[in-house]
Amino acid sequence: MTHETRLRSATKEVVLGHDRPFCLIGERINPTGRRIFQEQLRAGDLSAIERDVAAQVAGGADVLDVNMGVPLTDEADLLARAITLVQSLTDLPICIDSSVVDALEAGLAAYQGRALVNSVTAEDDRMAAILPLVKRYDAAVIALPNDEDEIPMEADRRLELVARIVEVATTEYGIAVEDIVIDPLAMPIGADTSVVQTTLTTMRRIRDEYGLNMTCGASNVSFGMPNRHAIGAAFLPMAMTAGLTSAIMDARTPQIVEAVKAADLLLGHDEWGSAWIASHRAKQAVAP
Amino acid sequence: MTHETRLRSATKEVVLGHDRPFCLIGERINPTGRRIFQEQLRAGDLSAIERDVAAQVAGGADVLDVNMGVPLTDEADLLARAITLVQSLTDLPICIDSSVVDALEAGLAAYQGRALVNSVTAEDDRMAAILPLVKRYDAAVIALPNDEDEIPMEADRRLELVARIVEVATTEYGIAVEDIVIDPLAMPIGADTSVVQTTLTTMRRIRDEYGLNMTCGASNVSFGMPNRHAIGAAFLPMAMTAGLTSAIMDARTPQIVEAVKAADLLLGHDEWGSAWIASHRAKQAVAP
Repeated sequence: MTHETRLRSATKEVVLGHDRPFCLIGERINPTGRRIFQEQLRAGDLSAIERDVAAQVAGGADVLDVNMGVPLTDEADLLARAITLVQSLTDLPICIDSSVVDALEAGLAAYQGRALVNSVTAEDDRMAAILPLVKRYDAAVIALPNDEDEIPMEADRRLELVARIVEVATTEYGIAVEDIVIDPLAMPIGADTSVVQTTLTTMRRIRDEYGLNMTCGASNVSFGMPNRHAIGAAFLPMAMTAGLTSAIMDARTPQIVEAVKAADLLLGHDEWGSAWIASHRAKQAVAP
Repeated sequence: MTHETRLRSATKEVVLGHDRPFCLIGERINPTGRRIFQEQLRAGDLSAIERDVAAQVAGGADVLDVNMGVPLTDEADLLARAITLVQSLTDLPICIDSSVVDALEAGLAAYQGRALVNSVTAEDDRMAAILPLVKRYDAAVIALPNDEDEIPMEADRRLELVARIVEVATTEYGIAVEDIVIDPLAMPIGADTSVVQTTLTTMRRIRDEYGLNMTCGASNVSFGMPNRHAIGAAFLPMAMTAGLTSAIMDARTPQIVEAVKAADLLLGHDEWGSAWIASHRAKQAVAP
């Protein structure tokens, strides 16, 4: 048995599920590594967000990740304002992304709908701070199987931490199991060519033993390697075969988006191939 | 436990295995659907083969499939001549491809090395005709799990036919189990969007229950659909995750070849990523 996770904006619902098309969480609304964007945000200028939202929507994002982690700013205030702005620009649901608990709370308070919170870990203090917010604001949450001690490199240990998060979230905080989305930790292949096998094994076991939805930062896998898009375009179909149901990724990369849509087709998540064929026709209409 | 299948030309060995890089069997040396090539072959002109061999080798083929199925010719004579010619052009091992038993025998007699025979089915008369040749010429063989009655659409039934072929080939004909390469039957997704899931399930079970090597006609999957290369580039990484260790495919399709190489990297079959990085450098050297 597998679970479905329901996310909503004020007017639109998106469902993550093992029998559903893959959910593409657009990741560009994030100042990390973008100096000019950071300076704009520090000066209170959020206008660049408009272009980023438009690009992610045009690329086929189903949900938008919004992160306002700019050093030396009031991240809570900035994130709340960004979320209100993004919701004025698109009806896609939002993944509220911060390592700062106050910012998550401000974002949830500003959000209209049912958000995805990014993220909690198996650390006691993080669970105690974040899971009550997830419950209070009726959100879903991305959970990472690492704790105070380690990011475990073995699938067994990751599964133990998944078990712990699920136990704590459901029994101590009353969160529905289907609202827990696991990030099975996709590590860079460049560091050790066995890490993706561990990630794929972890994914298969989470699907088979828990039926939970999963997401991951898809571009991590190719970090430090040449021709990163080709690696991402192979990784996601492989991960989808192992049970990955969404990814946080840049929707502006047609090669990777196309690989995801092809994998949806091949996994029987695109009935009659109608989305695939429609997408081909749309491209032909643009460039015949 | 998984098996390794050793193929050889006079001077070069290629090994199929679940812990090995994927084996790309180049498929273009085949007149099917090529009217001009058919006419040339009928007139005894084999010169077009030279160009096809060069293109498959340049594209990264590890083995070459050679098929000379031209109506109204002496296929046995043509195939024997083609194999001798191909072996004068390249040191890659050959997959001898015919539905005509006499042609397979002539091809095996002409071949220098350890060939892959394409193919046998679970039909009694086909096994009785082809498996003794495989044994006598010390070849490996591609086996398709269909019989007189059907191409089964269920994984269970395909596995039953795999069991039958393995039993007959090993006990009645003395063929080593590692020399049986299963084609798990990749059907067109356009006909029914559930067929690829059946193929992937069949692959996983053949790997887990038998450890045998597998191959398939990779382009079948996208038959009748638009943007076929993108479907092929997603399918092969998915199938490799499920245990596919080789495919019969056109090596002139860089998008699909690249997907296979990326999947090798992600599955830990490209130590240190050295093949991936070398391939990137080679491309940069051509088009910096």
